[in-house]
Amino acid sequence: MSTYLTILGYNSAIPTVNSSPTAQLLEMEERHFLIDCGEGTQVQLRKAKAKFSKINHIFISHLHGDHCFGLPGLIASFRLLGRETPLHVYGPKGIKEMLETIFRITETHRGFEVVYHELESKNSEKIFEDKRVEVFTIPLNHRIYCNGYLFREKPNERHLNMAEISKYPEIETCDYHNLKLGKDFVLSDGYVLKNEILTTDPSASVSYAFCSDTRYDERIIPIIKNVDVLYHEATFLHDLKEMADYTGHTTALEAARIARKANVGKLILGHFSNRYPNLSDFIREAGEIFQNTVLPQQLQSIPID
Amino acid sequence: MSTYLTILGYNSAIPTVNSSPTAQLLEMEERHFLIDCGEGTQVQLRKAKAKFSKINHIFISHLHGDHCFGLPGLIASFRLLGRETPLHVYGPKGIKEMLETIFRITETHRGFEVVYHELESKNSEKIFEDKRVEVFTIPLNHRIYCNGYLFREKPNERHLNMAEISKYPEIETCDYHNLKLGKDFVLSDGYVLKNEILTTDPSASVSYAFCSDTRYDERIIPIIKNVDVLYHEATFLHDLKEMADYTGHTTALEAARIARKANVGKLILGHFSNRYPNLSDFIREAGEIFQNTVLPQQLQSIPID
Repeated sequence: MSTYLTILGYNSAIPTVNSSPTAQLLEMEERHFLIDCGEGTQVQLRKAKAKFSKINHIFISHLHGDHCFGLPGLIASFRLLGRETPLHVYGPKGIKEMLETIFRITETHRGFEVVYHELESKNSEKIFEDKRVEVFTIPLNHRIYCNGYLFREKPNERHLNMAEISKYPEIETCDYHNLKLGKDFVLSDGYVLKNEILTTDPSASVSYAFCSDTRYDERIIPIIKNVDVLYHEATFLHDLKEMADYTGHTTALEAARIARKANVGKLILGHFSNRYPNLSDFIREAGEIFQNTVLPQQLQSIPID
Repeated sequence: MSTYLTILGYNSAIPTVNSSPTAQLLEMEERHFLIDCGEGTQVQLRKAKAKFSKINHIFISHLHGDHCFGLPGLIASFRLLGRETPLHVYGPKGIKEMLETIFRITETHRGFEVVYHELESKNSEKIFEDKRVEVFTIPLNHRIYCNGYLFREKPNERHLNMAEISKYPEIETCDYHNLKLGKDFVLSDGYVLKNEILTTDPSASVSYAFCSDTRYDERIIPIIKNVDVLYHEATFLHDLKEMADYTGHTTALEAARIARKANVGKLILGHFSNRYPNLSDFIREAGEIFQNTVLPQQLQSIPID
């Protein structure tokens, strides 16, 4: 199952004609996770030809407008499109009061349930789990309570080695499930066939970490260690390090340092301040520390593998 | 002073890739009035190259999302742009609670005052007046409390007829003000010079009426009588008249009927249901009743004269 990240917007603070505020769509194991939802996200989703009905989980990092002002409109549109399935919204405590106040006053009567998962913990916690995917919070260090999110495929099943298996007529189709889970097979004469003879290693499970907005904070490194792709905000270049600290943000150099120390596969930068007309400086600065750094492109779909 | 209406968006309900929800910018006598503010309005304002700092008055017709979900983001951006002057927001009761809840939870600390003018009356009332312009509510008939707005230039001053005035050395520059106001001039010998000899008629004062969303309701006709331009919603074609009534909307034919009965100069239709791919049917239907009917174009600037 392929995993794709679609960048819907990566701008900070004020939306412009050409760039939208933060929002991403992660397709992992056929789940469609929306991450942050700045104003205009529903139009970006349309441009990306996303299927609204497949979005059942929305993860909001923090309650600054450029990360959540698209939520009321998106949820209102879900209703107009006839949605019936529950929608799970994960975000800081307060998100329920805000949305429910808006829905009450704007008479947005929903035909579906919004299930709020309000977050308050300062520690990383598992907030979602199903058969194939787990999601953990990544406590960040911003001006306001803020979490990144770690999305992780569960370990895949081992592949059957049919050439070996076919040598043992005692092994039946109903045994394959246990073999895929890594169990040995005991023949009727008591001989134990080791699992690694009958199967080969599973495909790698992929992982994605979304970190926005935050000061440079090495406490996130154990949580995001070895992820395949890390999105980390880089609002400023390092000559404005003081401004970054003051406003609760990170510099490109610092984001790269996090990526290197966490040994991630790829770093995507984002959330650039509007003061920078030319983003290539971000790649130059980060690339010296962590080579596999890329800039996001709006509506770009990035495979995670 | 020219008056211009810029259509920022005219879509109903769900924003699409090519059309934004309702928002208009009216420039009248150098005042910049924003009318309704659906999601994405701040980006539409940027596309229209509007000067954010000149917008001091925002008029919201009703608290359905497609008419107000752009407000929180726009006001947050005003703050980020360093605004200090007060912002006046006119809209139904509830708008203050909604916005203030959002600003509290998203920690949108404003450096300027938002002055709320909450409306509850079911009668037309004057809600704004300065030296040059008056604004009145137009009570509409929607599913939720809703007002249109009538913007009216105050009568212009009379033009001086310098050819006549120069014949009377007694008339000095300091007398011009009274002449422009229509006063006669009394010569020192007691002879009264009639004002209409010394001045010519003033330029016409223009007026604009914005009516969205509403069922067909002739009670608005006395309020909008003889306006130069009327924007009236026309969500459906007349074969869906029942649907229009049920959802609190108007058909193209009905909007044209209102325009004809109110003897307006021009009718702009809008707020079309997404079910119609081809809007020319709206012009065809309305045009049979009221010929000077036009479709809005996004970001189009329409002179009002």
